[in-house]
Amino acid sequence: MNLLSLFCVFLCLTPALAIWPRPQNLTTGSTPLRLSSTFSIKFSGINQVPSDLSDAATRTTNFLKTDKLQVLTPDRGASSSSAVHSARTLSSLTLKLNSGATVKSVSSEATQGLGTQDESYSLQVPANGGSAVLSANTALGLFRGLTTFGQLWYDLDGTTYTLQAPIQVMDAPAYPYRGFMLDTSRNYFPVTDIKRTLDAMSWVKINHLHWHVVDSQSFPLVVPGFEEISQKGAYSSSQVYTPANVNDIVSYAAARGIDVMVEIDTPGHTTIISQSHPEHIACPEATPWAQFANEPPAGQLRLASPATTTFTANLIKAASSMFPSKLFSTGGDELNENCYTKDPQTQQDLASQGKTLEQALDTFTQATHSVLLDAGKTPVVWEEMALEHQVQLNNETIVLVWISSDHVAAVAQKGFRLIHAASDFFYLDCGAGDWVGANINGNSWCDPFKTWQKAYSFNPIANLTDDQAKLVLGGQQLLWTEQSGPSNLDPIVWPRAAASAELFWSGPGGDVRAALPRLHDVAYRFVQRGVKAIALQPQWCALRPGACDVDA
Amino acid sequence: MNLLSLFCVFLCLTPALAIWPRPQNLTTGSTPLRLSSTFSIKFSGINQVPSDLSDAATRTTNFLKTDKLQVLTPDRGASSSSAVHSARTLSSLTLKLNSGATVKSVSSEATQGLGTQDESYSLQVPANGGSAVLSANTALGLFRGLTTFGQLWYDLDGTTYTLQAPIQVMDAPAYPYRGFMLDTSRNYFPVTDIKRTLDAMSWVKINHLHWHVVDSQSFPLVVPGFEEISQKGAYSSSQVYTPANVNDIVSYAAARGIDVMVEIDTPGHTTIISQSHPEHIACPEATPWAQFANEPPAGQLRLASPATTTFTANLIKAASSMFPSKLFSTGGDELNENCYTKDPQTQQDLASQGKTLEQALDTFTQATHSVLLDAGKTPVVWEEMALEHQVQLNNETIVLVWISSDHVAAVAQKGFRLIHAASDFFYLDCGAGDWVGANINGNSWCDPFKTWQKAYSFNPIANLTDDQAKLVLGGQQLLWTEQSGPSNLDPIVWPRAAASAELFWSGPGGDVRAALPRLHDVAYRFVQRGVKAIALQPQWCALRPGACDVDA
Repeated sequence: MNLLSLFCVFLCLTPALAIWPRPQNLTTGSTPLRLSSTFSIKFSGINQVPSDLSDAATRTTNFLKTDKLQVLTPDRGASSSSAVHSARTLSSLTLKLNSGATVKSVSSEATQGLGTQDESYSLQVPANGGSAVLSANTALGLFRGLTTFGQLWYDLDGTTYTLQAPIQVMDAPAYPYRGFMLDTSRNYFPVTDIKRTLDAMSWVKINHLHWHVVDSQSFPLVVPGFEEISQKGAYSSSQVYTPANVNDIVSYAAARGIDVMVEIDTPGHTTIISQSHPEHIACPEATPWAQFANEPPAGQLRLASPATTTFTANLIKAASSMFPSKLFSTGGDELNENCYTKDPQTQQDLASQGKTLEQALDTFTQATHSVLLDAGKTPVVWEEMALEHQVQLNNETIVLVWISSDHVAAVAQKGFRLIHAASDFFYLDCGAGDWVGANINGNSWCDPFKTWQKAYSFNPIANLTDDQAKLVLGGQQLLWTEQSGPSNLDPIVWPRAAASAELFWSGPGGDVRAALPRLHDVAYRFVQRGVKAIALQPQWCALRPGACDVDA
Repeated sequence: MNLLSLFCVFLCLTPALAIWPRPQNLTTGSTPLRLSSTFSIKFSGINQVPSDLSDAATRTTNFLKTDKLQVLTPDRGASSSSAVHSARTLSSLTLKLNSGATVKSVSSEATQGLGTQDESYSLQVPANGGSAVLSANTALGLFRGLTTFGQLWYDLDGTTYTLQAPIQVMDAPAYPYRGFMLDTSRNYFPVTDIKRTLDAMSWVKINHLHWHVVDSQSFPLVVPGFEEISQKGAYSSSQVYTPANVNDIVSYAAARGIDVMVEIDTPGHTTIISQSHPEHIACPEATPWAQFANEPPAGQLRLASPATTTFTANLIKAASSMFPSKLFSTGGDELNENCYTKDPQTQQDLASQGKTLEQALDTFTQATHSVLLDAGKTPVVWEEMALEHQVQLNNETIVLVWISSDHVAAVAQKGFRLIHAASDFFYLDCGAGDWVGANINGNSWCDPFKTWQKAYSFNPIANLTDDQAKLVLGGQQLLWTEQSGPSNLDPIVWPRAAASAELFWSGPGGDVRAALPRLHDVAYRFVQRGVKAIALQPQWCALRPGACDVDA
């Protein structure tokens, strides 16, 4: 590394290289370089290139032609015109496996299990033209590197260029879990919306879709053997996810390096199952709802009923077999005690078994988790299951912290691995006012709006010992959809959800001041690719990095 | 009116008739009625039907075929199937002018001047089939009635029906000004976005687009004789509104009963003019910006300079001649004194004329307003011009109250007519966090988010005497676009902006509990028509009026 490129690591990176998330190690020069009009991506020494990897290379090549992302300066690059047009050309990018020989597909690596994956890669783009080289130990690593390669370039009058060759990247994620959660129960999202979201996620190296597929309001998942639940519980016969849809989504995700962790939230958040199975639901649609649930409608699985427990375990077994992921969430949030107190059958079940409600919850949870463990899967739960209830969770259980980031230490203290998903940093739905009716002055329960800066500045290991810090698997932003649907999916999520993508790929400590210009690039690039990311600032500010900072 | 229909005025209206805004007088029955497959809209006794009115009839007919809006109940109308399919059919709607004879076009009436318009109409839909009748005194009234007629119907398996015939409507607006403000300077919106917004506005009888077309960040308006301003001050040569674009927008709006009130904000909010005319701008892009402006970049017209005053008056004259509206806003908000204190030329100009800054502002304002008054136009200003400065405003000047609804009474006390646009009720951009950079914990300056309920519950005559109440022309919701652009235009505006549409058409006192089901209909109908209105609640709630109310 020469002195100039060292200088550029600190000062040139931000405005001029639209890479997101920030690589662990990046060096750049100051030589203009453009892509040849016959630029191509090649594979070297790989027996049987997996089709999902070659497809990814094709998509990258296409984006290099279609992105047309102008540099975000007032002149949009015009002053670099002669440098760009006289620059040497890069004719190709060559993908190599460090190990050579055969390689698993991106898809199989994406779903093979948290912490077993190698996403590292290295990328060399020479200043003198010729060919760039991307190498990795795995197809998944090559896939991540392709994503980075696709972010090195701007467009000027049809020429795809960088002013910062040579470029060297050595990269690997700080955390194995980088997620995004989507709720498809409160409002339904067509498969095309989910696939577009998966594309966007992959562009910022998010590797998990936490699919909160069902809830109290609707049950769109068509589970083999349990079709009656969605027949009666989906909003309509067209607002469902069939097994074929799930296959489609899961395959699409895996080919983009994304594992789909589905959640069947239990025993709360299950009201709509009463439409097909009234025998399994306590306090269905009970009123006033506020006494029976955190939001309407009330209704929970009769956790003390042996029949309901068996039904639920079988449902979870059937649902989990639809997904290749090793992760499966059984939920477990916001259990309402009053619902069970007022449910004669639950009281009778408890009495006949001589159990407390907490003991029944333990039995219920053991039953639903054991079908997952038997299938070689890892149960994932919301924090209450670890912190508020008397449930014996398997040591391998992963805990999603959602109520408050202040609860992270308590979960770690219990020795559980955890995923950051705290409402005070990561909830994308906060700040849109209260959505319950007849409440003129109601505000969002988790006001204020959680900005990208807020998520970006989160410290994943705050208040943790070094040993506890090892329990942090990563984190995610989340979209609960009481006030969202296909109409605002893109703008409410993007580019905000890129904040946690960088936090958990690049590691904490990123500077919002330096990040903003790159995040503008993310937003403008997403729009070019058909994802309706919002403007974070007036375009005047986007074109002038730093000029709209609070202290500028 | 029989007893049943009287009953229905109070209890049947809300869930079953998707009319928005609420008519002044509506009676409904309980007889099913469906549209004939050959349903048509006819004109009776009108010499030379204006083409914009016949176009509106064609659009209405098309929407009746394409809306496919299912009733928002869990069964989506299935239980009414036999009633619907055995219902009598309505073969036509006949439009009549009360006066007969010739009629002006919708467009000419829309732009002829505030308070001179007659938007009243009456509509009779018989229960026994045959033909419905819409009558009005003007083409504009017929246009409003057509909009209402288009909202009476649901779809069931391809049949367009109502269960509530006969329907009688007598309607007229409570206020002459029902607006929506769009800022196209902070971020640019293509003409197609503006036209789609005009369509949506017309569907809820909003009759003014307050077009905040330019500001400090960009100057997209191509003004004849002043082309250099947009050449240097638009974000790019494609992010402009040419005179042809303006004609297109103004004509499109007028044909939909909408007058376009353009704003050239002066003397503040004009930084970008320094790109083409540095001689006219004080403190251009001065830093730290917070000392010179409320948001970056700083820069204001040199109001004490005779040359700048002449330049501005000529610019306003040229810009105003692009728009047929009788209303023109010269802005006048957020003038920063320090900018002028630190500007040597302004200080010199003031000294040579022996004027205070306020006296210079008065001279400047007289000059810019007199070109409007000479052209038969009414100047419109932000509240500071009436409340904070020593400016002699013409009595006809209209004041936009924006800082706080608490300032309404002070404006009225000065005898000015006013338009409600207060940030504490009507700002659509609030609640999205702070947008200035490097500010991790910054919140929106006007937190929290302004819900539709908040706007809907506003009292336009609070703290006003009866005489002062007559000064209230109406009101509007506003979208400032520091954090918005084409990606989120629809979802951040709709259906929220329908709240003020009903408030100022139907008059205050509407009940949010009764309004919500109709507003769901608005949102679902907008989506059917290609406007991406958001979900206000989970679909479960939308299908069950009242079930998700805070006290349900």
